[in-house]
Amino acid sequence: MNPLSSPLLTDHYQLMMLESYLEQDMQETAVFELFVRKLPPGRNFMIAAGLEQTLDFLENLKFSPEELTWLAPHFGDSLIAYLEQFRFTGDVHAMPEGTLFFPDEPVLRVTAPLPQAQLVESRIMNLMHFETLIASKAARCVLVAPDKLLVDFGVRRAHGAEAGLLAARASYLAGFSGTATVLAGAMYQIPLFGTVAHSYIQVHEDETTAFEHFARSHPDNVILLIDTYDTEAGAAKVVVLARKLSQDGISVKGVRLDSGDLGMHARCVRQILDEGGLEKATIFASGNLDEYRLHKLLSSGAPVDGFGIGTALDVSSDAPSLDCAYKLQEYAGKPRRKRSEGKATWPGRKQVYRKYASADGCMAGDVVALAEDDFHEGEPLIVPVMEAGRRIGENIPLDEMRRRTLASYARLPMPLATLEAAPAYPVEISTSLRTLAKQLDEGSGASGRQT
Amino acid sequence: MNPLSSPLLTDHYQLMMLESYLEQDMQETAVFELFVRKLPPGRNFMIAAGLEQTLDFLENLKFSPEELTWLAPHFGDSLIAYLEQFRFTGDVHAMPEGTLFFPDEPVLRVTAPLPQAQLVESRIMNLMHFETLIASKAARCVLVAPDKLLVDFGVRRAHGAEAGLLAARASYLAGFSGTATVLAGAMYQIPLFGTVAHSYIQVHEDETTAFEHFARSHPDNVILLIDTYDTEAGAAKVVVLARKLSQDGISVKGVRLDSGDLGMHARCVRQILDEGGLEKATIFASGNLDEYRLHKLLSSGAPVDGFGIGTALDVSSDAPSLDCAYKLQEYAGKPRRKRSEGKATWPGRKQVYRKYASADGCMAGDVVALAEDDFHEGEPLIVPVMEAGRRIGENIPLDEMRRRTLASYARLPMPLATLEAAPAYPVEISTSLRTLAKQLDEGSGASGRQT
Repeated sequence: MNPLSSPLLTDHYQLMMLESYLEQDMQETAVFELFVRKLPPGRNFMIAAGLEQTLDFLENLKFSPEELTWLAPHFGDSLIAYLEQFRFTGDVHAMPEGTLFFPDEPVLRVTAPLPQAQLVESRIMNLMHFETLIASKAARCVLVAPDKLLVDFGVRRAHGAEAGLLAARASYLAGFSGTATVLAGAMYQIPLFGTVAHSYIQVHEDETTAFEHFARSHPDNVILLIDTYDTEAGAAKVVVLARKLSQDGISVKGVRLDSGDLGMHARCVRQILDEGGLEKATIFASGNLDEYRLHKLLSSGAPVDGFGIGTALDVSSDAPSLDCAYKLQEYAGKPRRKRSEGKATWPGRKQVYRKYASADGCMAGDVVALAEDDFHEGEPLIVPVMEAGRRIGENIPLDEMRRRTLASYARLPMPLATLEAAPAYPVEISTSLRTLAKQLDEGSGASGRQT
Repeated sequence: MNPLSSPLLTDHYQLMMLESYLEQDMQETAVFELFVRKLPPGRNFMIAAGLEQTLDFLENLKFSPEELTWLAPHFGDSLIAYLEQFRFTGDVHAMPEGTLFFPDEPVLRVTAPLPQAQLVESRIMNLMHFETLIASKAARCVLVAPDKLLVDFGVRRAHGAEAGLLAARASYLAGFSGTATVLAGAMYQIPLFGTVAHSYIQVHEDETTAFEHFARSHPDNVILLIDTYDTEAGAAKVVVLARKLSQDGISVKGVRLDSGDLGMHARCVRQILDEGGLEKATIFASGNLDEYRLHKLLSSGAPVDGFGIGTALDVSSDAPSLDCAYKLQEYAGKPRRKRSEGKATWPGRKQVYRKYASADGCMAGDVVALAEDDFHEGEPLIVPVMEAGRRIGENIPLDEMRRRTLASYARLPMPLATLEAAPAYPVEISTSLRTLAKQLDEGSGASGRQT
């Protein structure tokens, strides 16, 4: 069983429901939509991500003989027979990856026979939730440090292997420069960055020898970690060593700081490097960084050229989850609405239209409307991406998605582009959608009938 | 490339350092230890977890031809030749999974040729950090609700597939009753729990029909979700339906609440069920639960028999990461110490001794000492688990680890077993360890020499 593609990566209740649906022959078309109920505190927008992995999952979904053998003692024969033949044959509509979006806006819609649309819920949410979470966090770092080298350093404290990989992908999509995670470079062609750890310095008998060994093994990438013992003393050693190395045509590209008061050290180190003739050497900082520390460092004028952002990025430390949901909107042609306290949903298949201000091209408000009979001005954000279980449309490379995402930041109204919570971006629920919800609540729609 | 076992799931700098170590022929024995620097706010202890996955990783570590082909253009021939033959041949010592531990106490020690011990850092931390994080969170839920059914519901908002699986494992290890994640049941033999989603109720024309369909498809597991429209009305429908079902020998096992004021609804629903002759039907609650809400519900006397805990567990919402580190303690027979500001480490190979009070058997203080020449009273917590790259010692089933973990809670001093931050558990650094650190700081040890 491959945990990354196994259909058993689902909640037990999905299989319980499937068994019941098959018994009742309830296999008509269901429509589910994925959306986020509300923004985490202090956040102003989200970035849609995870679609490519979701479509991969759907396109390749099948039960292996080993999985069926494991399931057999726990479920009835008719479910097992159904799962043997199982393929996802539905349609998917979605916002392209990298799209800025807001609460109540569907980012993905699944239209498929009820058992199929139900079974895939857990993994679709697992993928879309996580990549959206990380892209949304990464975007904030990019917005406060738009001209800096930003590198994902988080794999060691990411929540498992897939989190490490997808965090590298989602942060790159949102505008990061690259990652330290080698496998993410191999799988997604994301640029890789890395220097040395403190242990490298420590296993050498002295710091200068460590610096020199590293420089001679990697003459094209001489970035030296200088905080193992004393940061400024380390910088001074770099200056001395640089003269020696230059005789062999090796130049010091930069230094890395990883502890202490990074702003203060960066200033002192910059001065030492400049006075030592290393004006071109860059300063790279890491160590418990997040978007708030980046902003503080840069607005105080700290001369830092790049940042390694680890834990806070890969676990989205201030908001390690989003309040997202994958909810039934229609079954057998009839719109449905969940009305549980505090968890009510807007029914039906929906589209999101985005308007832009003519003056500056900035985003000027969205409308959530019914997809088929309720046209509005603006750009429709949801597009078809899968038909009858096969991907459609152009295959957009990650680099291209990243370029589009970076370009979209320029259209974000200014208050939303800061780290402070701004007044909510206007998202209007269309009149016909409100009317439909009201009708269902009043019991004229199918899901409103109660006995 | 299998992301869950690929040696490329590592930081780029590990390969940079390896290349340099090979050039300098620095392949003597290195000792690294994994520990947590400090507890998250409000926490009193941690639970060691992730060892089994770590040993699996080390035992099977090798580079595939595909991985070597990918690496070849980026690194020198001698590194590629070395990696072709790469196997982990080192020793591992560790606390058994489920052991309660505290800051500054090593939970795992790797003793191996330097390049090996270095390369495996990223994935060892990735695995041990995450499972320890989740086991430590889950333990808090178990401590506040020791007699309740506790089920992991978190896969949809876990950070990727592996996080969902390992969260199920780590929470079960810490005393949870089971999980909803089917694949975790298949892979780790963890008991599975699950009922239905709201969508199941909504696709039926009315709620009672939905209840009846579910009961008849799963007569042995009739747990009905009653909050889709109106919780108390749902409970009343269950009472009526139960009479009909009992004629066919089907009994209602319980109901699930998933929204609103769970304590208030549980009381009303309990009364409705009791008055309707369903005294034996249980009430299961879910929806944004964590250990604090569990404690509040139970201490207010809410008649809830079991809880599904999802997002807050699987992302460890209040503390989504631990400040853990994997640090060099010794190289080529000489102890090493990192002295970066705020990140200094205790040098050398260490053991942790735990004392117990004779009166009540409770844990009464730990000593962190040098492993080989510094014996102390108490139970040594760190044991050998891998020798020359192969596992040693008994293979402990997960159920047995879980029983031991549950038993260990009884030995936790009372203030530490609550949700409030208690005075720190006493962890003493032995005199000889302090002396060694001081010697290194004063420059008499190898790592202290600076030029």
